[in-house]
Amino acid sequence: MRLSRYFIPVTKDVSSDEKMIASHKLMMQTGMMRQNAAGIYSWLPLGFKVLKKIEQIVREEMDRAGAIEMLMPTLQSADLWRESGRYDAYGPEMLRITDRHDRGLLYGPTNEEMITDIFRTYVKSYKQLPLNLYHQQWKFRDEVRPRFGVMRGREFYMKDAYSFDLDEASARVSYQKMFAAYLNTFNRLGVTAIPMQADPGPIGGDLSHEFLVLADSGESEVYCDKAVLDVPPPGEGFDFEDHDALIEEMEKRTKFYAATDEKHDEAAYAAIPADRQVKARGIEVGHIFYFGTKYSDPMKAEVQTKEGELTAIHGGSYGIGVSRLVGAIIEASHDENGIIWPDEVAPFGAGIISMKPDAEDCAAVADDVYAKLTAAGKDPLYDETSDRAGPKFGRMELIGLPWQVTVGPRGVKNGVVELKRRATGEKEDVSVEAAIARITES
Amino acid sequence: MRLSRYFIPVTKDVSSDEKMIASHKLMMQTGMMRQNAAGIYSWLPLGFKVLKKIEQIVREEMDRAGAIEMLMPTLQSADLWRESGRYDAYGPEMLRITDRHDRGLLYGPTNEEMITDIFRTYVKSYKQLPLNLYHQQWKFRDEVRPRFGVMRGREFYMKDAYSFDLDEASARVSYQKMFAAYLNTFNRLGVTAIPMQADPGPIGGDLSHEFLVLADSGESEVYCDKAVLDVPPPGEGFDFEDHDALIEEMEKRTKFYAATDEKHDEAAYAAIPADRQVKARGIEVGHIFYFGTKYSDPMKAEVQTKEGELTAIHGGSYGIGVSRLVGAIIEASHDENGIIWPDEVAPFGAGIISMKPDAEDCAAVADDVYAKLTAAGKDPLYDETSDRAGPKFGRMELIGLPWQVTVGPRGVKNGVVELKRRATGEKEDVSVEAAIARITES
Repeated sequence: MRLSRYFIPVTKDVSSDEKMIASHKLMMQTGMMRQNAAGIYSWLPLGFKVLKKIEQIVREEMDRAGAIEMLMPTLQSADLWRESGRYDAYGPEMLRITDRHDRGLLYGPTNEEMITDIFRTYVKSYKQLPLNLYHQQWKFRDEVRPRFGVMRGREFYMKDAYSFDLDEASARVSYQKMFAAYLNTFNRLGVTAIPMQADPGPIGGDLSHEFLVLADSGESEVYCDKAVLDVPPPGEGFDFEDHDALIEEMEKRTKFYAATDEKHDEAAYAAIPADRQVKARGIEVGHIFYFGTKYSDPMKAEVQTKEGELTAIHGGSYGIGVSRLVGAIIEASHDENGIIWPDEVAPFGAGIISMKPDAEDCAAVADDVYAKLTAAGKDPLYDETSDRAGPKFGRMELIGLPWQVTVGPRGVKNGVVELKRRATGEKEDVSVEAAIARITES
Repeated sequence: MRLSRYFIPVTKDVSSDEKMIASHKLMMQTGMMRQNAAGIYSWLPLGFKVLKKIEQIVREEMDRAGAIEMLMPTLQSADLWRESGRYDAYGPEMLRITDRHDRGLLYGPTNEEMITDIFRTYVKSYKQLPLNLYHQQWKFRDEVRPRFGVMRGREFYMKDAYSFDLDEASARVSYQKMFAAYLNTFNRLGVTAIPMQADPGPIGGDLSHEFLVLADSGESEVYCDKAVLDVPPPGEGFDFEDHDALIEEMEKRTKFYAATDEKHDEAAYAAIPADRQVKARGIEVGHIFYFGTKYSDPMKAEVQTKEGELTAIHGGSYGIGVSRLVGAIIEASHDENGIIWPDEVAPFGAGIISMKPDAEDCAAVADDVYAKLTAAGKDPLYDETSDRAGPKFGRMELIGLPWQVTVGPRGVKNGVVELKRRATGEKEDVSVEAAIARITES
């Protein structure tokens, strides 16, 4: 993409009446988003690209684990929530709406009721189980005090999956699949997310893990054994049908201590060797629950067993905060100059800075780099504007693409361009071919 | 995808208290969607796949025309609509919402106000023009009587683009680009959409075209010269920077008579040679407007001209009903046995029916077809269930994938499978290799 034909409204000065966390400030400065109302944001082109990349990785990993994608609407009928008893229980965070015919609607904060209604409509036999349906959709929670940008917005984008099983034993397998899929998902997103035993909270249930990314601005205090950070993810070739492997993936992490302050056990923490004790702050980016028959009982989501009897299904729900992750990744990966995007979620694969776009030889080399990186599928951002060098470098550094290729007059005379890795700051003068090769191999 | 691991709740009997149009009935029967409340639908896996394919084609064609993708939220501040004067003017179709702090929100039925606000925040100079920003997002219109399934739902998915230009001449070029992009978009979607002069309606403006797909269930009566149906689309290689070509694309269509009943001119219609007079019904799938300074004047969306003066920008908006198109395509393409998906939007590229999944030789051939079509990127749907032959054929016919490959015991003995083209009903016995080749070439 040529920067002159794109829309990245970079604004160095971000005024605000609240103390901003780094991700909020950086997203405003890089023109990734714009606040339209308290806790409600537009995703400007650069932010939108990142959101879509995260969405796609989440999708691929859910599909790999056997979950099936669909899409539920944002608005739901109030009656459905009366069936589960949550309409009155949910409190003022639920945005309640009345339509022109005085019927009660609400903006879905989550979808257990709706998916249970869909399930009971179509699924009648144990033969159709197990089933795991998921969607990625906008949700709304009317936070009293929305803050931290997209980290605690009101309208937010979430992946939520729902599993249906005949009994608890089978439901636990579904749970383990999601546990493993989450580890692969966060790994691909370039963050280390630690699974921690969690209180089930208002959603209910008895088996529950939160996944937290360590960052100074995290809302939770977390305590863990450093060893848990070093356990590798299941990986691309993981077999989700291998039950022993599923159990092992959970056990090799849960054997190490890891808890948020809510569940913290000081004695267990003290028993960790001192050099492995980690006390830090964390951002919740995923949450998985097994909740048994909490919804299937009141909503009569039942299937026929092999023996011909009706039984309420055992359910679980599995969330990932997709829009929140944009902020969480930035919190975990930035420096004083700007964002440092992990390769897989970077809005563009590389940035090209043309230092003298009006000098023919310079422009020709920069055009060549642009054409070659585009052909290689690296979707580069090409700064061919006539802005001065300082602002161009500062802007590219702020946006934080994984690689920067600078094409200047001196280098062009010597047949080289400057290749810089954003994460390490390492620079070297290399030929155009070598630069393309390095970026393409990464 | 193996059907036994997927979720397509086909239900032959669709009960309803309203007279259903074909697309509504077929979408219910094929388990593409489920109604959650009046005019509010869930997109079950099969329907979701089609919606995503349309979204992606719309995206590619918008990008090709130079529009830039972003994403605005579903909820908007009421204050923004008070600025343009539309908050009071819009009427009961606008879903008005009050949050916990008693602030006025609304579920966006369209986004002129919000995009104008974003524009005026960041764009200050003529140098940043022209600019065309678009998004694909859920919208809500509180229809008095939602009907016809996704064709007139309340929560619907729409692509809306907004152009910003320095003056009317330049705005007309932006308009022409969208006109050409729409022709390519609908062509790729497998439908013929006729551009017709339209009344600008409540959105305002003085240059406006609707794009209509001919179908018996269409809500509008349309009159046109048959010749307009035969003008080819601009095509993949079209140069959107060629102003003469842009004008020509409009002129070579608008020179033929085409109008909805609202704008119908009986005398002009009578002047068309009798054998070219077409009177039919049409479904509106797109609508483009040039509205000048209708929003930029009251909302002060101004830029500095070359001469240093402030001037209100000239705007246009360009909608495509993405969720509505799912229904419109079915209306235009089905028979008494079910849907006939155009290749580019089909939820799966081909269907494979394994007639004897428990016979080893049959299953091996069917598995082989599945593996090869998958490897060829045709994303086949593989019916390896133990259902009887009749229901399997009926279901595949109903779902309407472009190709069907039937693997039966007799054919396997003779080294052939049956290849059927859904649109024509043509069948032939061919080798597995020949079947793969035919499907891959299509």
